[in-house]
Amino acid sequence: MALIVQKYGGSSVADAEKIKNVAKRIAQTKDKGNQVVVVVSAMGNTTDELIKLAYQINERPDERELDMLLSTGEIISCTLLAMALEAMGYEAISLSGAQAGIRTDAVYSRARIQSVDPERITRELDKGNIVIVAGFQGITDDMDITTLGRGGSDTTAVALATSLGAEVCQIYTDVEGVFTADPRIVPEAQKLSEIGYEEMLELATYGAKVMHPRAVELGELFNVPILVASSFTDNPGTLIHGGVAMEVRNKVRGIAHDLDVAKITVVGVPDRPGIAASIFEPLAKANISIDTIVQNASINNITDLTFTVAKSQLAKAMDVVKPIAKSIGARECSSDAKLGKVSIIGTGMQNTPGYAARMFGALKEKGINIELITTSEIRITCIIDEAKVKEAVKALHRAFELEG
Amino acid sequence: MALIVQKYGGSSVADAEKIKNVAKRIAQTKDKGNQVVVVVSAMGNTTDELIKLAYQINERPDERELDMLLSTGEIISCTLLAMALEAMGYEAISLSGAQAGIRTDAVYSRARIQSVDPERITRELDKGNIVIVAGFQGITDDMDITTLGRGGSDTTAVALATSLGAEVCQIYTDVEGVFTADPRIVPEAQKLSEIGYEEMLELATYGAKVMHPRAVELGELFNVPILVASSFTDNPGTLIHGGVAMEVRNKVRGIAHDLDVAKITVVGVPDRPGIAASIFEPLAKANISIDTIVQNASINNITDLTFTVAKSQLAKAMDVVKPIAKSIGARECSSDAKLGKVSIIGTGMQNTPGYAARMFGALKEKGINIELITTSEIRITCIIDEAKVKEAVKALHRAFELEG
Repeated sequence: MALIVQKYGGSSVADAEKIKNVAKRIAQTKDKGNQVVVVVSAMGNTTDELIKLAYQINERPDERELDMLLSTGEIISCTLLAMALEAMGYEAISLSGAQAGIRTDAVYSRARIQSVDPERITRELDKGNIVIVAGFQGITDDMDITTLGRGGSDTTAVALATSLGAEVCQIYTDVEGVFTADPRIVPEAQKLSEIGYEEMLELATYGAKVMHPRAVELGELFNVPILVASSFTDNPGTLIHGGVAMEVRNKVRGIAHDLDVAKITVVGVPDRPGIAASIFEPLAKANISIDTIVQNASINNITDLTFTVAKSQLAKAMDVVKPIAKSIGARECSSDAKLGKVSIIGTGMQNTPGYAARMFGALKEKGINIELITTSEIRITCIIDEAKVKEAVKALHRAFELEG
Repeated sequence: MALIVQKYGGSSVADAEKIKNVAKRIAQTKDKGNQVVVVVSAMGNTTDELIKLAYQINERPDERELDMLLSTGEIISCTLLAMALEAMGYEAISLSGAQAGIRTDAVYSRARIQSVDPERITRELDKGNIVIVAGFQGITDDMDITTLGRGGSDTTAVALATSLGAEVCQIYTDVEGVFTADPRIVPEAQKLSEIGYEEMLELATYGAKVMHPRAVELGELFNVPILVASSFTDNPGTLIHGGVAMEVRNKVRGIAHDLDVAKITVVGVPDRPGIAASIFEPLAKANISIDTIVQNASINNITDLTFTVAKSQLAKAMDVVKPIAKSIGARECSSDAKLGKVSIIGTGMQNTPGYAARMFGALKEKGINIELITTSEIRITCIIDEAKVKEAVKALHRAFELEG
């Protein structure tokens, strides 16, 4: 008998019929003699509807109130799922984040899990119950309800799997697993049967939407195997774990892409200590996430500083940067909102030369200009014209022979 | 500075605009220098929609799960109301039943409040917050969420007013107050500016829908003045309290009516000890509420036993009673589902003869046949043909000169 944690996303529980289908899948796992803990997201677009309602009433809803409001979405789906299992003759109980012992800090809308007290879950499992836990939420020491922000329900699932010592954390979603590239762009993309945490982390961070990097990171930290699979089919999915062979023959494992890239360049910056801080500290205070930062080699102590942000944050970032650029004596401040990025990822790239050259060559062959380049040990990312991203993904998929 | 508890029902917070209007009313109370605690019901028909969703999934939803599901309705309305107040520049915080310290027993769907720990509410009031509490819900010792059943939000409000030592508990609803009769039936019905707890309790129990008897009872027990008024106007409403003069000149205070009456008669029952118990114990076990019970004087040790139930419970009650009637040797078992009741209520009736005669006379004058009669010290109730109830209410309103 194993303990299995399963997570079902919002599209998997979008209506009464889909909830019943999910209940059947859970029942199959239970029938095999497993103890089952299930984490669910809110039904379909419930969260968006609640947010819309809040904004009708207050243009800047208080984050504590918004979290308490949004937490109802997951309570609704988990009680309905428990009822669906009971209708099939199974014993089930729903638990809110608070009841499930998920304690977080008090940073509303993006709370971090501080600890999980699994006492209640364990007690319910011991009674023979299937335990359904509301994802995406927790409770502070003062009994205030928090939400975990993006990737929250995946994070709930991995955190529970960790604290319960589960055999595996199964993330059921509306895709079949992790692919070598987005199958909507590259029809011949291959599903990976397994992938290492680090590679998955880079894929997720650099654009693969299948799982949020935060949950992958937690899985890696506590070495919890994570299966990503479809909630609509019985196909095997992709297992994310730590035991993947390093020396796989084809050393690029996947192509990630992201269309949400805008660039700001501060031109003609005097190159002296503290200049970068004077630009990036105010951006951080304005809660703007900076992605890539590139500084050119300085000529006559004058340099250009380029960085990227999400497109939705470009206007706000320009408002912050323009007066700073002026005050530090920069020549000008330009921006480009029509960018995307494409990345090749694989642990096999470590200490092996030639990948970058092959990537740049494939892009050059298609006449794609590279605006910026960034790398990690297991990833190379090029920022390019957003209109060229799909073509680049296809070209790279072919160049690294990922079609299988 | 006084502490005031206000309660707003579902129709008062049915949409974003109505929530904003309620926020304005609360703000006025706060502006007068009061501390304000507000209890809200779920928006409009949210509760019905959640119940419908549950029944789509499970024909007999588990009561614990249903309570947890339904509790989200009040969380949604109270967070939105807090946001509306914040949008107007007021400090507000929403609290779930659990956060507000409302502890109940574990009888799901009709839990009873066991205690209120007002620590968190008091702390938030001391910070200057308007405190918005989710009505209709509480939490058990095991942190399970319960709902309080019918009249739940009114009960939450009165319980909070009691435990906080509030000056008054104001129940805002979609009617203007307590009337001498239902104004939809008797256009000249008068709004009562005040009424005693006992009279209100009888009015509520015998059909006046303005407030649930349970909350009135709690108010009487702890002597909390309760104001019932409209949330849509600034008219003064009706104050329910203990200090109403007993010797009011017109001693009938109001006419209550109820169209939900069905009658079962067990005919030809041998009149021996234990017969009543043998009928009513199985009905209680089947969770059927019995209202009026009348037993005729026995002739030759044979009697008729008549009792009334809600119309929706008639079929179930007949299923229970028929085999019992047979086993105890009764002649037959008949029923009538088309009944209603009409009551005259007033503490002034105590020890004063002539009210019954005047009531029966007024009904007789209209040719209305009386099926059953029951009385309390301050009430006389006649069960009559449901088709005659409206006419009876009008006639009694005139006969007791309630038109003012």
